[in-house]
Amino acid sequence: MKGVVRIGVLGAGQLGRMLALAARPLGIGVVAIDPAEDAPAATVAEVWRGAYDDPALLARLEVAAEAVTFEFENVPPAALERLAQRRPVWPSPGALAEGRDRLREKALFERVGIPVPRHRAVRDRADLDRAVVELGGRAVVKTRYGGFDGRGQAVLDGPVDAATWDALSSSPLLAEAFVPFRRELSLVVARGADGALAFYPLVENLHQQGVLRLTLAPAPDVPSAVEADVRAAVTRLLEHLGYVGVLALELFDTGTGWLANEMAPRVHNSGHWSIEGAETSQFENHLRAGLGWPLGSAAPRGVSAMLNLLGEMPEHAALLRVPGTHLHHYEKAARPARKLGHLTLTAPDAPTLAQRLRAVAEVVPSLREAAHHGARRLDTRSLVR
Amino acid sequence: MKGVVRIGVLGAGQLGRMLALAARPLGIGVVAIDPAEDAPAATVAEVWRGAYDDPALLARLEVAAEAVTFEFENVPPAALERLAQRRPVWPSPGALAEGRDRLREKALFERVGIPVPRHRAVRDRADLDRAVVELGGRAVVKTRYGGFDGRGQAVLDGPVDAATWDALSSSPLLAEAFVPFRRELSLVVARGADGALAFYPLVENLHQQGVLRLTLAPAPDVPSAVEADVRAAVTRLLEHLGYVGVLALELFDTGTGWLANEMAPRVHNSGHWSIEGAETSQFENHLRAGLGWPLGSAAPRGVSAMLNLLGEMPEHAALLRVPGTHLHHYEKAARPARKLGHLTLTAPDAPTLAQRLRAVAEVVPSLREAAHHGARRLDTRSLVR
Repeated sequence: MKGVVRIGVLGAGQLGRMLALAARPLGIGVVAIDPAEDAPAATVAEVWRGAYDDPALLARLEVAAEAVTFEFENVPPAALERLAQRRPVWPSPGALAEGRDRLREKALFERVGIPVPRHRAVRDRADLDRAVVELGGRAVVKTRYGGFDGRGQAVLDGPVDAATWDALSSSPLLAEAFVPFRRELSLVVARGADGALAFYPLVENLHQQGVLRLTLAPAPDVPSAVEADVRAAVTRLLEHLGYVGVLALELFDTGTGWLANEMAPRVHNSGHWSIEGAETSQFENHLRAGLGWPLGSAAPRGVSAMLNLLGEMPEHAALLRVPGTHLHHYEKAARPARKLGHLTLTAPDAPTLAQRLRAVAEVVPSLREAAHHGARRLDTRSLVR
Repeated sequence: MKGVVRIGVLGAGQLGRMLALAARPLGIGVVAIDPAEDAPAATVAEVWRGAYDDPALLARLEVAAEAVTFEFENVPPAALERLAQRRPVWPSPGALAEGRDRLREKALFERVGIPVPRHRAVRDRADLDRAVVELGGRAVVKTRYGGFDGRGQAVLDGPVDAATWDALSSSPLLAEAFVPFRRELSLVVARGADGALAFYPLVENLHQQGVLRLTLAPAPDVPSAVEADVRAAVTRLLEHLGYVGVLALELFDTGTGWLANEMAPRVHNSGHWSIEGAETSQFENHLRAGLGWPLGSAAPRGVSAMLNLLGEMPEHAALLRVPGTHLHHYEKAARPARKLGHLTLTAPDAPTLAQRLRAVAEVVPSLREAAHHGARRLDTRSLVR
């Protein structure tokens, strides 16, 4: 944890690990709290094993760290609020609270002029069935709190069945109109303590079973007016929240406009490409923001594709044979569908990137579908913007 | 030290630290041996404190690591030879031995057709005085073994004085003709276990008091015939040695040709720019070579300048305000002239890089001279190659 400056991180998963790897060269020491036995950050940071709200660990963290951040949004709010009384916490617990309830998040988005799908709060089963009709006959029902990687939601085309209702209704729900989107995009941005903004380009994401598989950075074929419109909307959001650090906004490109899906008040899987693909990574910028240092440029370096490695790690030699490959191994135990690492392919231009994606598809069967999808998207991109 | 593969490193200074930082994302665990109390690699690797030839530590290392490398060439040969009987050691102890004696190194260079300055072995003081005359009246006297960062050498314009002779003559010496070079260049190259080569571009170096201050990558104005000639010569050297891993060759550009100065059988300070400035860093390629994995491209990404941070670390906020700045803090205790970190500036083109060097000169007084030197070199480069 030695370092010129020392920070605390709640969570020592792969995001905490990549934060720590970005911190070290800046002379930043990292101490993290995580309940897991075998946390991925443990080889690059000092990790204290325990609950996020363990009072003894929090008391130690207040002493050890000059500022505190977190790697995921479901840390106990009371723990963050306690820390925030003694140390700067970034982003602020208040900003985090705004996004924790998906209904409140949508109200916030509407307040700052970020377009969202039509939606309804759901109090009971009859309420949900009515909402599906009112929202056009097809809706997504989601838990208002928690849930990630596609968990805690279901698509309904009519009255909810008993099994789905039972699975979800233990927590408060909301229903959203189903958006027949053309593609999913996301925006990752860093806001400094001085209000400076570093926008990464809009990226295109492919999810399968609710889990991110592929990110293309920058997203092909984003009209500059759309990029500017999203940036302006997110700027209003960040300023409203007095936000400091990295934030990600997931959105739907409907073909005729865009709608926000949700935000993540932290470094984000769809920003991992920035380690090699941007002038400054999202991890470094998150740290620079939190410590009051100037942000680095978020401009892309060439074009990149990020592929998540789920369930099993491919063989190093096969993978690294593909030009432009950058491997990120999280050193986690393998379990079906678990995020074990990611791969970033960099290239000077889209045709070369498509070629490299096809080469990856050849050598890693589990990436075939996502890599081919990415290659096709690059092939069919319009050359005029 | 956890990792899919575990390697051992003799030495846990900044080179070992940067090797470990490159190793982690590849799922490579690192254990290092170092006698220092406060080794820079200790926060990112498992560091065992002790002598490089401590038999107990070496015995543990043979068990813990699947392959072993080293961060500097003055490790005790017997320690490496012992390890090499049980584990792959890269580069091989034999290759290391060839470069340990500067006289033997020059004979090796001549054998493979690498041009070197005229030189003589020195047996006694009269021998040295004769050599200076024979070498044209100006010579560099150097210890045959050890010595780095300008230590263990002196420039003579006539008979040696008693103080210089006393300071150097406790170890065997050689004398070299003084080369009135136009500039210093170096070549960093990785050779894979399969014999594949990844050449970084020739870079231009500025030394002061024998210590590297600045590297410009790629070196401005290198005719492609010279680059090809140096590469061909180094290829003969690597093949002769059956070399595996990264090697650096320092050379003099005499204006009419080039002469080799010395080689370093390891990752090299003049290759640090490659972390951000090349497709694959020298550290990653050294690891990939040693583990038998395919090498990554060594092609530059834009243009870069590396500045060593000596004696004191500049303030983060001032430094990071300069666009394209990438800070590498080694977390070492400050001492006058000690290498405490380095800075890599990246830019899309030479004029932008020159501008950024001048911006660094403004905010970091201790870098002013080296940064201005670099900026002027970029200004006056010929635009035709």
